[in-house]
Amino acid sequence: MHDEHEIIKLEREAMARWCKGDPDRFLELSAPDVVYFDPTLEKRLDGHSALTTYYGRLRGKIFADRYEFIAPQVTATDDMAVLTYNFHSWGGSEDALRWHCTEVFRKGPGGWKIISTHWSFAAKLEA
Amino acid sequence: MHDEHEIIKLEREAMARWCKGDPDRFLELSAPDVVYFDPTLEKRLDGHSALTTYYGRLRGKIFADRYEFIAPQVTATDDMAVLTYNFHSWGGSEDALRWHCTEVFRKGPGGWKIISTHWSFAAKLEA
Repeated sequence: MHDEHEIIKLEREAMARWCKGDPDRFLELSAPDVVYFDPTLEKRLDGHSALTTYYGRLRGKIFADRYEFIAPQVTATDDMAVLTYNFHSWGGSEDALRWHCTEVFRKGPGGWKIISTHWSFAAKLEA
Repeated sequence: MHDEHEIIKLEREAMARWCKGDPDRFLELSAPDVVYFDPTLEKRLDGHSALTTYYGRLRGKIFADRYEFIAPQVTATDDMAVLTYNFHSWGGSEDALRWHCTEVFRKGPGGWKIISTHWSFAAKLEA
């Protein structure tokens, strides 16, 4: 499905910049009414302005030398889609950070925009 | 918006049963192609069958005497919707478990069904 590939491509492009300390592509991709969760937050962030402030504090501070998208999957209707994947990133130490990620996109006049982001830590189970 | 209220109502009904050790309402609400993340998992669970097996192991083991939905919010198109909220639950100790939750619903012939669930722990910041 065309939109699935486009959505994964948008996410990969934004992530490539994120892993070089640059949050701007994620900010461009996010809708005015975006909501956001990550493990450092006590509660949900609401809206693009709050996300811009938050990402602004992370600008130039987050780097990953290497990262891996694991099993990205899109479930879509005509105008909304949910992208889920596991994500491993390496930045300066041998151990990977292991994440769960859910991104919800909505299609509007400006194309697909993120309306919900949820990052969390995956469990690291013993082999 | 009518659907927003319906979606929050569906979630509250399923959660009331979940907090009494009964996962069946969440299973009834979940679509065949549901995907699922929580902090005890190394990677995403894919599909209703995997979720049924997983929830089956939790049946009768999870209880909350008291719980609170915080700022539930729905962003919807005609046939897809994302519900986000913070959730605090108390079960046997003074301290609450603090969660972030994202649920994505899709509307089909059988009504609204969950296609994506993401539970994670919220940070507990000092006052």
